[in-house]
Amino acid sequence: MIKVGIIGATAYTSREIIKILLRHPDVDISYLGTRREGNFKISEIFPVLEDTLDMPCSQMVLDDLPNGLDMVFVTLPPVVAMQYVPMFLNAGIRVVDLSADYRFQEKSIYERWYETKHTDPSNLEKAVYGLPEIFREKIKKADLVANPGCYPTSAIIGLAPLILNCYVHTDDIIIDAKSGISGRGREPKEGTHYCECNENIEAYNVGEHRHMPEIENILSLIGKSETKVYFTPHLIPMNRGILCTTYAKTKKKSSCKEIIAIYNEFYSKEPFVRVKKDDKLPKTKDVANTNFCEIAIRVVDERVIILSSIDNLIKGAAGQAVQNMNIMYGFKETLGLLY
Amino acid sequence: MIKVGIIGATAYTSREIIKILLRHPDVDISYLGTRREGNFKISEIFPVLEDTLDMPCSQMVLDDLPNGLDMVFVTLPPVVAMQYVPMFLNAGIRVVDLSADYRFQEKSIYERWYETKHTDPSNLEKAVYGLPEIFREKIKKADLVANPGCYPTSAIIGLAPLILNCYVHTDDIIIDAKSGISGRGREPKEGTHYCECNENIEAYNVGEHRHMPEIENILSLIGKSETKVYFTPHLIPMNRGILCTTYAKTKKKSSCKEIIAIYNEFYSKEPFVRVKKDDKLPKTKDVANTNFCEIAIRVVDERVIILSSIDNLIKGAAGQAVQNMNIMYGFKETLGLLY
Amino acid sequence: MIKVGIIGATAYTSREIIKILLRHPDVDISYLGTRREGNFKISEIFPVLEDTLDMPCSQMVLDDLPNGLDMVFVTLPPVVAMQYVPMFLNAGIRVVDLSADYRFQEKSIYERWYETKHTDPSNLEKAVYGLPEIFREKIKKADLVANPGCYPTSAIIGLAPLILNCYVHTDDIIIDAKSGISGRGREPKEGTHYCECNENIEAYNVGEHRHMPEIENILSLIGKSETKVYFTPHLIPMNRGILCTTYAKTKKKSSCKEIIAIYNEFYSKEPFVRVKKDDKLPKTKDVANTNFCEIAIRVVDERVIILSSIDNLIKGAAGQAVQNMNIMYGFKETLGLLY
Amino acid sequence: MIKVGIIGATAYTSREIIKILLRHPDVDISYLGTRREGNFKISEIFPVLEDTLDMPCSQMVLDDLPNGLDMVFVTLPPVVAMQYVPMFLNAGIRVVDLSADYRFQEKSIYERWYETKHTDPSNLEKAVYGLPEIFREKIKKADLVANPGCYPTSAIIGLAPLILNCYVHTDDIIIDAKSGISGRGREPKEGTHYCECNENIEAYNVGEHRHMPEIENILSLIGKSETKVYFTPHLIPMNRGILCTTYAKTKKKSSCKEIIAIYNEFYSKEPFVRVKKDDKLPKTKDVANTNFCEIAIRVVDERVIILSSIDNLIKGAAGQAVQNMNIMYGFKETLGLLY
Repeated sequence: MIKVGIIGATAYTSREIIKILLRHPDVDISYLGTRREGNFKISEIFPVLEDTLDMPCSQMVLDDLPNGLDMVFVTLPPVVAMQYVPMFLNAGIRVVDLSADYRFQEKSIYERWYETKHTDPSNLEKAVYGLPEIFREKIKKADLVANPGCYPTSAIIGLAPLILNCYVHTDDIIIDAKSGISGRGREPKEGTHYCECNENIEAYNVGEHRHMPEIENILSLIGKSETKVYFTPHLIPMNRGILCTTYAKTKKKSSCKEIIAIYNEFYSKEPFVRVKKDDKLPKTKDVANTNFCEIAIRVVDERVIILSSIDNLIKGAAGQAVQNMNIMYGFKETLGLLY
Repeated sequence: MIKVGIIGATAYTSREIIKILLRHPDVDISYLGTRREGNFKISEIFPVLEDTLDMPCSQMVLDDLPNGLDMVFVTLPPVVAMQYVPMFLNAGIRVVDLSADYRFQEKSIYERWYETKHTDPSNLEKAVYGLPEIFREKIKKADLVANPGCYPTSAIIGLAPLILNCYVHTDDIIIDAKSGISGRGREPKEGTHYCECNENIEAYNVGEHRHMPEIENILSLIGKSETKVYFTPHLIPMNRGILCTTYAKTKKKSSCKEIIAIYNEFYSKEPFVRVKKDDKLPKTKDVANTNFCEIAIRVVDERVIILSSIDNLIKGAAGQAVQNMNIMYGFKETLGLLY
Repeated sequence: MIKVGIIGATAYTSREIIKILLRHPDVDISYLGTRREGNFKISEIFPVLEDTLDMPCSQMVLDDLPNGLDMVFVTLPPVVAMQYVPMFLNAGIRVVDLSADYRFQEKSIYERWYETKHTDPSNLEKAVYGLPEIFREKIKKADLVANPGCYPTSAIIGLAPLILNCYVHTDDIIIDAKSGISGRGREPKEGTHYCECNENIEAYNVGEHRHMPEIENILSLIGKSETKVYFTPHLIPMNRGILCTTYAKTKKKSSCKEIIAIYNEFYSKEPFVRVKKDDKLPKTKDVANTNFCEIAIRVVDERVIILSSIDNLIKGAAGQAVQNMNIMYGFKETLGLLY
Repeated sequence: MIKVGIIGATAYTSREIIKILLRHPDVDISYLGTRREGNFKISEIFPVLEDTLDMPCSQMVLDDLPNGLDMVFVTLPPVVAMQYVPMFLNAGIRVVDLSADYRFQEKSIYERWYETKHTDPSNLEKAVYGLPEIFREKIKKADLVANPGCYPTSAIIGLAPLILNCYVHTDDIIIDAKSGISGRGREPKEGTHYCECNENIEAYNVGEHRHMPEIENILSLIGKSETKVYFTPHLIPMNRGILCTTYAKTKKKSSCKEIIAIYNEFYSKEPFVRVKKDDKLPKTKDVANTNFCEIAIRVVDERVIILSSIDNLIKGAAGQAVQNMNIMYGFKETLGLLY
């Protein structure tokens, strides 16, 4: 039984982490930290937790370490997260950080895209990118895991088998991504107003979303060669779910069957990746509230088209964070996550 | 051709007034006033108006009268509206006010429910409640029309024939009302956040919504006896539409047929009230984007159950405001509103 | 460990039962029966179950008993269910039936409302109405539990404390109920077409829904006096959730505080009923995907207004069915249901 | 004043044609034909039309010509449409056909994709593709206009300026399209069931949708060279709206400004095309219920990314059909469509 804290307890992703951990036999939720003022229980913020976790939240003060924790999930916004992470690491507390602050090995890329100086470069170097399907061995030994972004999770799982096997050209990959509104976070603003989102679809940050360099960075690492993606995110009137429709150009003519075989082999032992059978295509509703990623492949002439879907709050955030914890502590990887 | 101004041009209801007036052959939109700073066209606020009304908004200053207007629609919030209305009336400009500031003949009721002193009591006395189905004759001659609230419009049209004919007990009327999210206004807040509204229904302000005294006030006027209603509003995950399910107790046993006959006669000449035929029930989608109110009646034992539906932004606000303008100026009542 | 079968495995409620049982430590899903032809796994019908329950469905033949089962959940439609239930009971297999076929002690009420002869009257007499909050002791010993309808669950939990304590008049109770579209079942028809349901609210079966006599029947039993309800169901554009807004007339003037105290005591030991604190009101999203029922009380003059919300597929069907199974087998009542 | 008939009056698109024509000063709706049996008014099918068009529908019999019509809109399904169209043309009645039956100049392409023999090849040759922005001059004189598909309208308007000016490679165009559910038609089936569509996004017919050859066909015509597109349609949980995100490869390096200038010039006189200004992007809600198409351009390295949005039922069907009629009869092109 490990003692776990959640740093930034009032985020949507924290609610999901809590719901998963309540099902986990080997975890004790010991601390809920928040920057909000006032005395309140987490179930006052998320009434869905009433009678299942009526635990008080603690107001966090920088450099004031909570007692007796083995590991923490940090769900603070980028830039804020790296203010808190070193304190935990220094005290020997392992960290799964859900912000973007430790996702880039190269400080300079982070600093360009997040328009700020990185204040914790030494830990940045040691951080492991928490995509179990690719970096499982490193995650086992990591003290700091940088949990991937929601779009990158979906896109990279969709592309990794082709990139690793050098099957596609790496200079012309198009990722057309669609996300539910919870991806926009909890803050009320015009872009999250019901009447602005409902009965509407729109693209945003075309070619300049911060998840684009994250995807390029990791794919380059996987394929051991510079990878360039065109990335267009869209907002869809639903609460949760991401579907990536990815278009890559094959180096040599391949049948759909051949490519599906590559995926089936690559993911044959993965507990949370489902390569769709027959002529089925992923629907986000089939992965909603689960840690699964569904993938389907189509080949049209020179293009392979990859459909990959996840729940942005689970496999794209909270679920994957718990999966990483399971790996770090040698728990069965699916604990808390399968049912 | 009359010259019309809209005072508070960036509200959702103003967008709807504009869309209707653009179809109106006898109206010239001459002025769009706003309290927002900066130079912008209305089509920058509402891109749907691009190429149909690319008119600049004017920043309003209290006591600085716009030129050359015949009438104005005031879509400012309550309390603010009554600061602006006198200026127009004093200059001989007729007003349809969409706030609550002139809906109560008795100042004291307003002051209790809106928790503020009424600053324009003399105009309050002269104001006419703008429900054409009941007060058409008075509206014709009015200089100041208080456009009804959205819930009251739906509820009162549903009850008026029974109240006027003293068919039901007036001390035990239950109005269970359901509204789309646009009724909450344009301001982003937790209660209008997509993820909080979507896949959810909730009641709010049970027994203490400000539209309750408005409904009681007007029904008492219609029935010439004190009327008490129990009013429970609910929020529904859709953009527009109100359905009121109203339960009244008949004084003597009546068949559904008899009561429908009363409604059919009462509304026989009304251009915007549809009493449903046969066994049909109102659906809000059938009145969406229209100025119609649909009504159906069921009798179960001692209770008559009235279903009445409107589009909260049209018959519940903008459309009714234009209908009132048509009546005030002797235009055909359906101009701009039927198609 | 008990061996459980699901009879009617392709219904939405069966999917939910399966998801819950997969979390249950003492249950083995041993049989999935369906009337559909062909060989298929349940995960082909519900892709969300892929990799968690890839079990084949068996085509059922009347009078052909599946082997080795301890109990079954019957999710067949009314009238069909009572064709299958006797076979299981005769073989000593306990049954939780989710249809309406065994909910009425009086055969005649069933026959009037379901317009058919009851073909299994002897078991009807022995069936226990599976609302644990009221009939827990009887459920423990029952071989046949009639799982309540979704609306009745929400309405009865909302009213029981007042009815049992004779606090309200039983001849004038109004239940205004709102349900998500999944309550309409899986069959594609005009009334479940996305474009007909989305951006729409409507009432249906006003005063003649089959859940009305079910509610009256059970409330009469609880209060030991004839109870009459006016029941109006509505369809709301969301997948799951029911909110009942119930208006009852108190016999003597009572404060909201007094009545909440009654509820708090009545439900103090119930694991799945939450009486809302302070000024909070139920939101269906706070009980979605859970077995909880949330209740809030308001008193306005002579009326007590009860808001009660559930997930129609969980506490209104699958979750309550498992709760009943837990009670029947002496398992901890919350097993599989709390997290 | 021309006398117009609608052939297939109970389709969603017919409802929209009717709503538009009711605003049109020069059109008389003279005939509503349907293949459904029974006597009914159109307002019984579409209650939104009650009190605005309570006209009876006529049951059509093949070869039985309705009297006194000048032109007809045919909204029958493909294959059925070409059974009815010749009858009207032979009688000198002009036709706007909304099916796919006359959209392909080459019979063979039609026959391959619609898997049927074309039964009216002589009229096929004379038909004009009804995209006013490209084929206005031909439409003026046409007796038979083939109204474009919804996806093709959005995609072709988005691409035409680049294709015509030979700015992009025509062998590697990717069109990632998203549509509301009304694009699936009125028929209730699993794919239009509310609970299957809501809270879900999915792709369908990847690389094999019938609108793909239609787009290729017309772009090839416009660019005078074989054009190949990769086309992936998706279903979005909303009633109406299409957004196409199109990725084309520029032949020579160009700035976003240059390309926007091309679009601004190309569409400078078009009444229904809006090239977005500044950094704005199209939202489907800004064109909902209008005949507008909104376009925005982004350039990222070698790729130009085109966002184009329409209302699938209006500019993608009914509105464009009326626009074509206006052109055919020399009416002002925006009549009935602008407000």
